[in-house]
Amino acid sequence: MASMFGKSLKVQIFGQSHSAAIGVVMDGLPAGTLIDLDELRAFMKRRAPGQSDTATPRKEADEIEILSGVVPGEGGAEQACTCDVKHASACGAPLAMVIRNTNTRSGDYAELRDVPRPSHADYAAYVKYGTAHDIAGGGHFSGRLTAPLCAAGGVCVQILRTHGVTVRSEIVQIGTTTDPERFRAEILAAKADGDSVGGIIECTVNGVRAGLGEPMFEGMENRIAAAIFGIPAIKGIEFGNGFACASLRGSQNNDEFIMQNGIVTTATNNAGGILGGITSGLPIVFRVAVKPTPSIAKEQRSVSLSRGENTALSVRGRHDPCIVPRAAVCVEAAAAIAVYDVVRGE
Amino acid sequence: MASMFGKSLKVQIFGQSHSAAIGVVMDGLPAGTLIDLDELRAFMKRRAPGQSDTATPRKEADEIEILSGVVPGEGGAEQACTCDVKHASACGAPLAMVIRNTNTRSGDYAELRDVPRPSHADYAAYVKYGTAHDIAGGGHFSGRLTAPLCAAGGVCVQILRTHGVTVRSEIVQIGTTTDPERFRAEILAAKADGDSVGGIIECTVNGVRAGLGEPMFEGMENRIAAAIFGIPAIKGIEFGNGFACASLRGSQNNDEFIMQNGIVTTATNNAGGILGGITSGLPIVFRVAVKPTPSIAKEQRSVSLSRGENTALSVRGRHDPCIVPRAAVCVEAAAAIAVYDVVRGE
Amino acid sequence: MASMFGKSLKVQIFGQSHSAAIGVVMDGLPAGTLIDLDELRAFMKRRAPGQSDTATPRKEADEIEILSGVVPGEGGAEQACTCDVKHASACGAPLAMVIRNTNTRSGDYAELRDVPRPSHADYAAYVKYGTAHDIAGGGHFSGRLTAPLCAAGGVCVQILRTHGVTVRSEIVQIGTTTDPERFRAEILAAKADGDSVGGIIECTVNGVRAGLGEPMFEGMENRIAAAIFGIPAIKGIEFGNGFACASLRGSQNNDEFIMQNGIVTTATNNAGGILGGITSGLPIVFRVAVKPTPSIAKEQRSVSLSRGENTALSVRGRHDPCIVPRAAVCVEAAAAIAVYDVVRGE
Amino acid sequence: MASMFGKSLKVQIFGQSHSAAIGVVMDGLPAGTLIDLDELRAFMKRRAPGQSDTATPRKEADEIEILSGVVPGEGGAEQACTCDVKHASACGAPLAMVIRNTNTRSGDYAELRDVPRPSHADYAAYVKYGTAHDIAGGGHFSGRLTAPLCAAGGVCVQILRTHGVTVRSEIVQIGTTTDPERFRAEILAAKADGDSVGGIIECTVNGVRAGLGEPMFEGMENRIAAAIFGIPAIKGIEFGNGFACASLRGSQNNDEFIMQNGIVTTATNNAGGILGGITSGLPIVFRVAVKPTPSIAKEQRSVSLSRGENTALSVRGRHDPCIVPRAAVCVEAAAAIAVYDVVRGE
Repeated sequence: MASMFGKSLKVQIFGQSHSAAIGVVMDGLPAGTLIDLDELRAFMKRRAPGQSDTATPRKEADEIEILSGVVPGEGGAEQACTCDVKHASACGAPLAMVIRNTNTRSGDYAELRDVPRPSHADYAAYVKYGTAHDIAGGGHFSGRLTAPLCAAGGVCVQILRTHGVTVRSEIVQIGTTTDPERFRAEILAAKADGDSVGGIIECTVNGVRAGLGEPMFEGMENRIAAAIFGIPAIKGIEFGNGFACASLRGSQNNDEFIMQNGIVTTATNNAGGILGGITSGLPIVFRVAVKPTPSIAKEQRSVSLSRGENTALSVRGRHDPCIVPRAAVCVEAAAAIAVYDVVRGE
Repeated sequence: MASMFGKSLKVQIFGQSHSAAIGVVMDGLPAGTLIDLDELRAFMKRRAPGQSDTATPRKEADEIEILSGVVPGEGGAEQACTCDVKHASACGAPLAMVIRNTNTRSGDYAELRDVPRPSHADYAAYVKYGTAHDIAGGGHFSGRLTAPLCAAGGVCVQILRTHGVTVRSEIVQIGTTTDPERFRAEILAAKADGDSVGGIIECTVNGVRAGLGEPMFEGMENRIAAAIFGIPAIKGIEFGNGFACASLRGSQNNDEFIMQNGIVTTATNNAGGILGGITSGLPIVFRVAVKPTPSIAKEQRSVSLSRGENTALSVRGRHDPCIVPRAAVCVEAAAAIAVYDVVRGE
Repeated sequence: MASMFGKSLKVQIFGQSHSAAIGVVMDGLPAGTLIDLDELRAFMKRRAPGQSDTATPRKEADEIEILSGVVPGEGGAEQACTCDVKHASACGAPLAMVIRNTNTRSGDYAELRDVPRPSHADYAAYVKYGTAHDIAGGGHFSGRLTAPLCAAGGVCVQILRTHGVTVRSEIVQIGTTTDPERFRAEILAAKADGDSVGGIIECTVNGVRAGLGEPMFEGMENRIAAAIFGIPAIKGIEFGNGFACASLRGSQNNDEFIMQNGIVTTATNNAGGILGGITSGLPIVFRVAVKPTPSIAKEQRSVSLSRGENTALSVRGRHDPCIVPRAAVCVEAAAAIAVYDVVRGE
Repeated sequence: MASMFGKSLKVQIFGQSHSAAIGVVMDGLPAGTLIDLDELRAFMKRRAPGQSDTATPRKEADEIEILSGVVPGEGGAEQACTCDVKHASACGAPLAMVIRNTNTRSGDYAELRDVPRPSHADYAAYVKYGTAHDIAGGGHFSGRLTAPLCAAGGVCVQILRTHGVTVRSEIVQIGTTTDPERFRAEILAAKADGDSVGGIIECTVNGVRAGLGEPMFEGMENRIAAAIFGIPAIKGIEFGNGFACASLRGSQNNDEFIMQNGIVTTATNNAGGILGGITSGLPIVFRVAVKPTPSIAKEQRSVSLSRGENTALSVRGRHDPCIVPRAAVCVEAAAAIAVYDVVRGE
């Protein structure tokens, strides 16, 4: 396994859907970094389920506990750090945050182990880990693991802001519609059919100065892509005008340089703020494709691994008919982790 | 800089467009790996310019010299290894390969240094490296650096074949057309206009067994994307049906499992052979967007960095009106490096 | 910070002396690895204080809680994993283990922050982290952090045994004596003086097959040394006959090859089982120097950082007059982590 | 293989004793770094053989050729960079340097392949790489590979000096003598016996500011040790008073803090400038044990791998009776690489 990301800031995620806890260790935060815990909770709440009829009604208690890496932020009081405090100050040691799982391996997963859910990791994990794999709730592959991702990303968002950098995602497509007013209807229609639907999220990172990143394999695109594909269900990423650039002429796609108030900038931003792997000073813009939730009530074909024969499957439980709304903040989190790792390393 | 890729096989690329040489060091090849040098040359020739009227007429002498890491492959003769031999056998030490540059910093690059070419890395590199940057021919950002990438990738392709794995790219779009019969016309039309055009390449990796890769940040998608964005001009990557999945319902996008001749497989491959970061046993399929060559004869706006004012620029020299045909083999090379790195590490 | 070790098995340690908890994440354990929790507790107990008059009488509740990465080991029962179970089975996901700190930041550390303890990390950490540093109990630099090191090492010891490899430390010197019968007296004499004493530990790794490790920077010596210096108070490491080899002739120091029962071996093991960074098949043998505990009751000179003037300091509290006995198991733990990382990666 | 070192500055060494060339790639040098090539040659010459009757009379043509990563250093002239120029300026791209081997695989190594030399890597490499191993001259394990190590280290020494840091080695023991006046006699006596002798080198890094390095596994001791053991024949390393600290009381070994001209310093430097992995501002001091050259003319026992029986061996050729004098500069090189990697990363 390698659920670790980063060079100058190492982010190590752990946990399974039904383990005692899930969490993350961040190694490399600058000593003195002030973390606003209320803001962090608000950031994570954007990901939490149970808040809308377009998401699963399942509730998760996602209260973060900080195990180490901080001292209370009010400037020196030497009492125990708990989440009652509003601010915590990174002390230079690795920051460890955990979220308890309240729903731990109580169900019966015998059928799940035998009949892999289509387009889930069940079968691939079975081949990789054999019967040792923790199948309960999807184990380490569960979307629940995006909670510690958001915890880490939320911290990075706060630090990036002190560098003048903001990260913001926006849903630009749900199913076949690009009209925000129809997003909810599209999701509810899929839900009514016992089905699910995908979408596209656009993320913009503003305020990144020119000259960040490296050529070739450590370019900004490489780093952001490597982080973003850590989110389950992402199947594509494009920077700037992305796949649309294929149809363009160079004269249409090139971003011409212009002087603006004494500063070098470009009239357009088809490159999405990255040239040769290095930031140009324009906003970093990328879009990601989110596949429709693979868990659907509709009956699907699958196989019984024990009997080696075809069978049918209807995924029970309360699933998101569309994970795009909850994934938007995960995209911000992953982008913030990748961008801050580069900022931190320069 | 960080022109290094890989965990179990480290690939370190070096060189600038006009440095004495460009090259690559591969650290981690299994001792005894037999390298067919004729096949490697043929692989690299697919990338070489000067072979078609759709590419730059510029010639490059791309003869590889192996500096270290091999003994002659004919089973023990202890003479010096040169490229006259047809086979070389990796001895376990790092394999170093170089390609001499014949055109080394002879021109006048004063203007290039002052007026950055739109959608090239010139300006970003200027901010990052200042006047120390080797601007000649694009320096380390030059497409010429894909030659050592192909050398390393060509070696990986040969090893992967011994594991039953093949890697193959195909051009699926040039400009606005997806009809292969019209690709050449599309390129020549752009060329006639002093312009350039982009396209889309699809790459298929066949024969990868199920269970390879890791969850989260070391998934197959993350690794392949991190390698692929090392190729200049790539602006997007999608796996399986990629961005198209956004418009689909789960019931349409899911790959249902079926038994086929006693083997678990899927009826469709919308996931592109990867689920939860781990291979499913189906072919890995991905597509990449290649932007139109930024170097065009058409006049474009740019700025004079020294004078801080707007100016105009026409990029002189012999440039590819479309780099997609030459980039196809680079995509194979990068994919082979990423996939073999995972295969090697398991 | 970078409290992470390993390539194929990543070990990330976190915590401070007085944070809510300390712990470790191990990413890369093979799925199906069976962990005997009683044995792990016994391994860790060898490090625990409060067990002898040669160690600090301070008690630590070092009960490990496994947060993730396992399923109960009795072959499939899907109930919550707790430390009540005797075996746990690694499921392939990162293994997270934590130990609660019961003594969290209750004291008054104002003086400690102002007057750095000689030969502790206080001053270096003050320069590095400023006032953000968590000074309480030494923070992340505390010897308490060897508890999670031992937790990780204890798991590696168990896995190595399934590969036929054993790791065993032995105290070979305490203060000026190399006579085991006098070790206790030497420590008690130092204790009676309000002082402390150092020593030397020898570690032997038996059963490692020939051919493991890499030349140059990833050699076995490099890897073991990089892990061992992660233990506070280690100031030297030597392999085989180590520093003694400096005084020898080649004809004395060389390990001549001989055939023994049809197997290639050597008559002596002056190399400590490692040649050119690679294991020779002989036992890996190394010794480490452990400095005397820097915390002593005796008055020492130090400075007041706030007043910029000389002062005196007597380190209060209950300290180990000699940490060598408790460090022996830490050396095994670090060696096991380093050796298993190499074994796992081959 | 993994002949790569470093985090912020990656140093990748390649080559075998008899390959076409040996060399090094340095990825991460700051753009604009000025390299004095005459000084670099002088640095490397300290390692070159054939200069004294205490070293092998074998001559090596060690002229460095820079393949990439620089532009000529005289401030902008855009002509080809060759080693005729006296200064080169790093351009930000990876610096590749090669040294041609003139003596390439011309001999007969059949016997060497069959009868491993005692205390060389021959046998370990045979087990690891099988017959694919390049045995000629020791292949990748040859001491000749310290030439590119010195090339990389020589560059780091130059950069460190601009940070006020100097690195200097000194021989403190040869065989049984610590009297510099008798070092030469000790070596010549071993030579006269067809034997060899070891020694101890002390290295001091002056001018490193306090606060560099990280706790635990990325401490200064860990990093320096990991680099130093990359030099063949090093069997031990100790920092400060090292193994001697084992015999001391805490009150003797502790470095008491004192104010000196308004600056915090210590009266002694038993810690060798490193506390908790972090620099204290005092000089970094360490000693390394160098084993006697394993190649000796004296007959030794060995085995025939093909026949599986005992045999005798006298290592022919012209070998160093003591490599300590030539190793001193290698220790400086490895230390400079390790220290600069940390300085660069802060």
